[in-house]
Amino acid sequence: MTREVFIAGIGSTVFGVHKGTSPVALASQAAQQALAEARCAPDQIGALYLGNFVSGVLNGQEVLAGLVGDRIGLGPVPCTKVEGACASGGIAFRHAYLAVAHGLCDAAIAVGVETMTHAATPQVTSALNCALDPGDDVMAGLTFPGLFGLIWNAHAARYGTTREQVAAIVTKNKANGARNPLAQMGGQIGLDEIVQAPLIADPLRRHDCSPISDGAAAVVLTSEALARRAGVEPIRVLASAQCRGTPYVGGHGDLTSFGATVAAANRAYADAGISARDLSFVELHDCFSIAEIADSEDLGIVPRGQGGRWALEGRTAVGGEMPINPSGGLLAKGHPVGATGLGQVYESVLQLRGQHPNQVAGARTAATHNLGGTGVVCVVNILQRSGA
Amino acid sequence: MTREVFIAGIGSTVFGVHKGTSPVALASQAAQQALAEARCAPDQIGALYLGNFVSGVLNGQEVLAGLVGDRIGLGPVPCTKVEGACASGGIAFRHAYLAVAHGLCDAAIAVGVETMTHAATPQVTSALNCALDPGDDVMAGLTFPGLFGLIWNAHAARYGTTREQVAAIVTKNKANGARNPLAQMGGQIGLDEIVQAPLIADPLRRHDCSPISDGAAAVVLTSEALARRAGVEPIRVLASAQCRGTPYVGGHGDLTSFGATVAAANRAYADAGISARDLSFVELHDCFSIAEIADSEDLGIVPRGQGGRWALEGRTAVGGEMPINPSGGLLAKGHPVGATGLGQVYESVLQLRGQHPNQVAGARTAATHNLGGTGVVCVVNILQRSGA
Repeated sequence: MTREVFIAGIGSTVFGVHKGTSPVALASQAAQQALAEARCAPDQIGALYLGNFVSGVLNGQEVLAGLVGDRIGLGPVPCTKVEGACASGGIAFRHAYLAVAHGLCDAAIAVGVETMTHAATPQVTSALNCALDPGDDVMAGLTFPGLFGLIWNAHAARYGTTREQVAAIVTKNKANGARNPLAQMGGQIGLDEIVQAPLIADPLRRHDCSPISDGAAAVVLTSEALARRAGVEPIRVLASAQCRGTPYVGGHGDLTSFGATVAAANRAYADAGISARDLSFVELHDCFSIAEIADSEDLGIVPRGQGGRWALEGRTAVGGEMPINPSGGLLAKGHPVGATGLGQVYESVLQLRGQHPNQVAGARTAATHNLGGTGVVCVVNILQRSGA
Repeated sequence: MTREVFIAGIGSTVFGVHKGTSPVALASQAAQQALAEARCAPDQIGALYLGNFVSGVLNGQEVLAGLVGDRIGLGPVPCTKVEGACASGGIAFRHAYLAVAHGLCDAAIAVGVETMTHAATPQVTSALNCALDPGDDVMAGLTFPGLFGLIWNAHAARYGTTREQVAAIVTKNKANGARNPLAQMGGQIGLDEIVQAPLIADPLRRHDCSPISDGAAAVVLTSEALARRAGVEPIRVLASAQCRGTPYVGGHGDLTSFGATVAAANRAYADAGISARDLSFVELHDCFSIAEIADSEDLGIVPRGQGGRWALEGRTAVGGEMPINPSGGLLAKGHPVGATGLGQVYESVLQLRGQHPNQVAGARTAATHNLGGTGVVCVVNILQRSGA
C-alpha cells in the first residue's frame, strides 16, 4: 500500500537566540538549506507541513505554512500548519512522510519553527501553558516544571532514583552540547554546580530545565528515485508513529511513564520490524533531566526503573551501549518548541551519515522521540542508513 | 491507490453565541453527534483532525486535538490540530478524508471549532490579523474588511458591479439563514436597511460582513463497509483538494480573483471527474458579501464578472439554476472560523440527504469552498449522494 520514503536533505538554524528574526525568515532559512542538500527545486515539492506551537500567542502570526511556502517559492501545493504542543515538529515530519509514502507527491518538506526569546519569561510560561488541560491542571496552578518535579518525586519514590543519577544526565547532555555547533549551550558542568543552581520546581534546579529558544529545522522527504539524485546519502524512514495520550496529570495512572510514548514506540517498532535493541542511538525529548529517564524507559531502551543508573554508569554516553541525545538534547541544544522534533531528525541524519560532531561509532538505526504537553501526543520515528 | 470514502455522520452546534462554553466542550458536542449518527464507537476512530485558528490567542488553549480526542473517548490514535486561518476546518476535513482514502484507518473524524464572542472586538480583530502577511499588509494597516473593500472596488471598476447587486447577496443569505435553525442570524433585509447600516470599510457596510461567532461542527468519514452500517444515508466524497495561494495582497495580480480558489477548484473537479456545471449547489466562503461574487466566479459556477448580476436576478437563490449558500453562508449562518469549513460540509450533507430546511430540489452533487487568510489557502470538496 505504501512505498519507501527517504530523507534527501536536511537544514537547521543554530538553536539559541535569534531576536529580530521572524519565524517565517528562520523557517525559510532551514527549508532552503534542506532543499539545496536534496537538490530539489521548489516546484518539485508537493506538500509542506509546518510544526509550530505558539507563534499566534507570542508573535501574533499564524498561517505560517502558507507564508513559508510562498517565501521558498513552492507551487500552489497544500501547505499546512500542524500543532501538538512540543510534538508539533514530529507531527509535521510524520505528515510529510505520509504524503510521500502514499504517493500524494514524490517530495514533501517538513519545517518546524519557534521564536520565544523575544518575550518576557512570564509571557513564555503563559504561552507554554496553552498545552495544559484547562481543567484541574490549570486550576491547581500546574506548570511544566511543576509536572516534571512531580514525575521526579514519583520516580525516586518507586525506583530510588537519586539526585546524582539525574545530574549525570545534565552533565552528559551539556557536554554533548558543547561539541555541537548548533547547540544553544553546553560545557563541563558537575554535580556541585547543578545542585547549587536556583531551584525551579523542587527537586528540579535550573540546569535540569531546557532553555527558552529560537530556531528552525527542516527535512525534505522523497521517493527512492528522487533520493538517489540528492547531493547526500539518503536516509531511509522505516516508520513514523503518532499516538495520543492522557492530556491531564490526573489521567496518568503512573506518573513515571507516558502512555503516549509507550504506544508510539510500540507502533513504530512494529511498523519498522525492529526492536528497541536494534537501535544504535536515540534522540529523545529531555525537556527536563528527569524526562530523559522516563522517556528512555518508556522507549524500552533502558530497563524500567534503571534510567538514572544507566546515565550515572555512562551507558547512555556517546561511547556507551545505548547513546542518548548525542546532540545535547533539549537540555543543551535547546528547545524551540515547533522545531524540536525536526531538530532531532536533523541530528539523527547527521549521525547515520557518519558526519556528526559527536559521532556514534557504527550508527545504523536511530529513533527520535518527540513528546507534547503533559503526554497528550507523542511521535516516534525510526530512521536507518539506506546502505544498512 | 485510494479507496472510496463516505460521510457516515455529521454533527454541529448552533453557530452563534456560546459564552462560557469552552472550545473543547463545543467541539466534543459536535463530534459526539457525528459519531452517534455514524453508529461509530469512539474506539473505531483511527484518526482525529481538528481545525482551529485562534484558540491560543483568544483562549490561551492549544492541544485541542488531544483534548477533544480524550473527551470523546478515542483510543491512543493520532489527534492533530491543523491551521490555515479561515480554511482550518476544510483542511481538517481533507486530512481525515486522506486517512481513510489511503487506508490508514477505516474511520476518521474531522472537527472544527472556534470561540470568539467572549473577546472584545479589538482583540478579535487582532486575532484575525494573525492571518495577514507580516510585511506590507500589516504595515499598511490592512484588515480583512479593508481587503474585501478593495476587492469590491476592483470588481466594480472592472465589471461594473453595483451596490444593488452586492446587496442582493446579503438579502438572499440573510433570508436563507432565517430558515436555518443552526444560523446565528437571518431575516428579511432589503436594500434600504443595507445601505443605511454603519460603514465598516468603504464600500462594505455592516450587513456585508459575517458576524463574530462561536461554534463547532464535525464529520465522520469512513470506508464503504462502515458507511453502510451508519444510521443515515452515506454521502460519497468525490474529491478534497487543498491549494496554496498568495499570502499578501500585493501578490494578487488580479484583486477580483483568488488563485488558491481557482487552483483548488480545478484540482477538485479533475479528481472528481466532474465540471462546475454538474454541481447542484455550492456552499462557499462568503466572509463578506463581495467575497461570494469573487468566489462564485473563481469556482466557475458563474461566468466571470457576472456574480453580481446572477445574484440580483435570483439565479443563485435556492430555487435558481445555481443555488449558492442555501445555509445562509457565513453572512447569516455565522463564521466560527475553525468550524466554518466543516459547517459547510454539514449543510451540504443535509442537502444531499434531502433533509435541509432550505432544500435544493434534486440536489445530487455539491461543492464546499473554504478560503483562508488573504487567499493563502483554499480547500474545495466535492460531495455526492451515494445513490446518485
